Amino acid sequence: MPAASPPPIAVSLGDPAGIGPEVIAKCWDSRAAFGLPPFVAIGDQRSLGAVWDGPVAAIDDPREADAAFDVGLPLLQLAAAEADLPGHPSMAGAHCSLDSLEIAVGLARSGSASAVVTGPVAKEQLYAIGFSHPGQTEFVAERCGVASGNVAMMLAGPTLRTVPVTTHVPFARVPELLSSSLIESRARSVLRGLQRNFGIAEPRLAVAGLNPHAGEGGALGREEIDIIAPAIATLVAEGWRVTGPYPADTMFHDSARARYDAALCMYHDQALIPLKALHFECGVNVTLGLPVVRTAPDHGTAFDIAGQDRADPRAMAAAIRMAAGCAAQRAMHGPLPGL
Amino acid sequence: MPAASPPPIAVSLGDPAGIGPEVIAKCWDSRAAFGLPPFVAIGDQRSLGAVWDGPVAAIDDPREADAAFDVGLPLLQLAAAEADLPGHPSMAGAHCSLDSLEIAVGLARSGSASAVVTGPVAKEQLYAIGFSHPGQTEFVAERCGVASGNVAMMLAGPTLRTVPVTTHVPFARVPELLSSSLIESRARSVLRGLQRNFGIAEPRLAVAGLNPHAGEGGALGREEIDIIAPAIATLVAEGWRVTGPYPADTMFHDSARARYDAALCMYHDQALIPLKALHFECGVNVTLGLPVVRTAPDHGTAFDIAGQDRADPRAMAAAIRMAAGCAAQRAMHGPLPGL
Repeated sequence: MPAASPPPIAVSLGDPAGIGPEVIAKCWDSRAAFGLPPFVAIGDQRSLGAVWDGPVAAIDDPREADAAFDVGLPLLQLAAAEADLPGHPSMAGAHCSLDSLEIAVGLARSGSASAVVTGPVAKEQLYAIGFSHPGQTEFVAERCGVASGNVAMMLAGPTLRTVPVTTHVPFARVPELLSSSLIESRARSVLRGLQRNFGIAEPRLAVAGLNPHAGEGGALGREEIDIIAPAIATLVAEGWRVTGPYPADTMFHDSARARYDAALCMYHDQALIPLKALHFECGVNVTLGLPVVRTAPDHGTAFDIAGQDRADPRAMAAAIRMAAGCAAQRAMHGPLPGL
Repeated sequence: MPAASPPPIAVSLGDPAGIGPEVIAKCWDSRAAFGLPPFVAIGDQRSLGAVWDGPVAAIDDPREADAAFDVGLPLLQLAAAEADLPGHPSMAGAHCSLDSLEIAVGLARSGSASAVVTGPVAKEQLYAIGFSHPGQTEFVAERCGVASGNVAMMLAGPTLRTVPVTTHVPFARVPELLSSSLIESRARSVLRGLQRNFGIAEPRLAVAGLNPHAGEGGALGREEIDIIAPAIATLVAEGWRVTGPYPADTMFHDSARARYDAALCMYHDQALIPLKALHFECGVNVTLGLPVVRTAPDHGTAFDIAGQDRADPRAMAAAIRMAAGCAAQRAMHGPLPGL
């Protein structure tokens, strides 16, 4: 008897006026070339129809996705949805994107989906309808009962994984927000995530400095000495393979990247600049520290090119493939304490 | 009658205990493969002999370098020099590296050399012998009679050129050091440098934001609105092709890089991370705003691998090649007012 297939990946279409529907449809078109497992889209069929001529396989239950996947793009239709024109976001579209996100997360939490992949949303419109989270990550964390401080945003490409300690905050506030305990907590999320989601038994984490040349022994700033090095010492004492602080500018070339499984960065652009310089077309955002697997393509709604058949589906394909890989890793090892 | 050859490139060996002598010797070994023009090394013959078996062509005048270049590595021997073991820097070696730097700059200023390429030096030892400049760049600027605030450090690789507005300062001080006038002054140095050294008649400069997502309209920091955008407006009003501020994380992928000739970055790592992630083996440091052409390989003395035949000469070769290219551009156009 063959092993039962895992449940499908739940993919929220994101904002109907953005490029989410287009890249998801293109992923189904090229599912064999991209090596994608069965997935089910959650959203409004009209937002697919507005940008794509392919077949939609409307289903009522994620369990039908596996069989339907060869026939058309499996879709769970939202009960109430209004159509948006591509490139023209609206509050109705924001409701749509929020509904599809909520359903996708629910499917993953209940085990009806193996993982959640989230399409890009428009924050401005979401805020206008009362969405009170900084982004989808925090919403997913809340729905999973995890404090948003305990999740980590990993950016992952074929040859590099980075995680920022501080995220969407002004540059000038980074020094005051950094603390040893925050670095330690993020590092533990990353290390456990590398074990659980990526199957790396003894993950190696490289920690970046904050200042040029990692502070040059204090001459160019003391955060390495006062905050970062003590955090690394604590993590090492716990048995983790953590090294640094390294000068950030020499951490990301080919041979340097080969020496670690993930780089812990002190601020947003320190993590995002190298990731996008190297892997712009296929960067994946992975949320670590959740009871479910959640990934997203590392791009936005791109309203300026929506509906023009110009959107590149490779990042969405990478996000779906990575979600499936992480879900398979988790299934192999079972749940760990505290996650 | 054939055109007279241009004068040779003057290459200072840098610290005799570092990898400078080795990479310069390897450049001569592979001069044909690297496509290098005649150059003359300035330093102590023993520091070459300690790491290299090849022929040295001791000369007394740079004009002999052209003919000697096929016979051996042309060398102007320092009058007083003490030998250092590779990997063991000393104050005597620092004197050597300072003497060779000074002579190389003098040759370029007098027109006896087309350009200066500087080998890596050890700052700690230089400071110990009374060197009072932050680095070689400021020393060269002073010797050329240019205020160090009016030069710009460009990092250049095959597909990317970046220039940091602030350089070797603590991360936390960057916001207070940024000003519209500093950005404008650096930008003008870069734009004129792109014209003079790289022959780009109407250079395109892309300016990075400071904050994540370039501040997201002020929500993540106001420097873009208060400081950077006004500087860009001033430069545009002067007729320059300057755009931005752009989110730094989406400025450095392949298609983004194709849209500008140089990126002006707000701080050290914003400029250095993408350059070294993409072009670690062949990054060149070009000083803009000087009356002479000066380049350097974008690496240090690497004392830990000196004398082991492990140093990669590609960055030094790129620095020599770029110096020759810049010198040829300048010779074609003649001196410009103010430079």
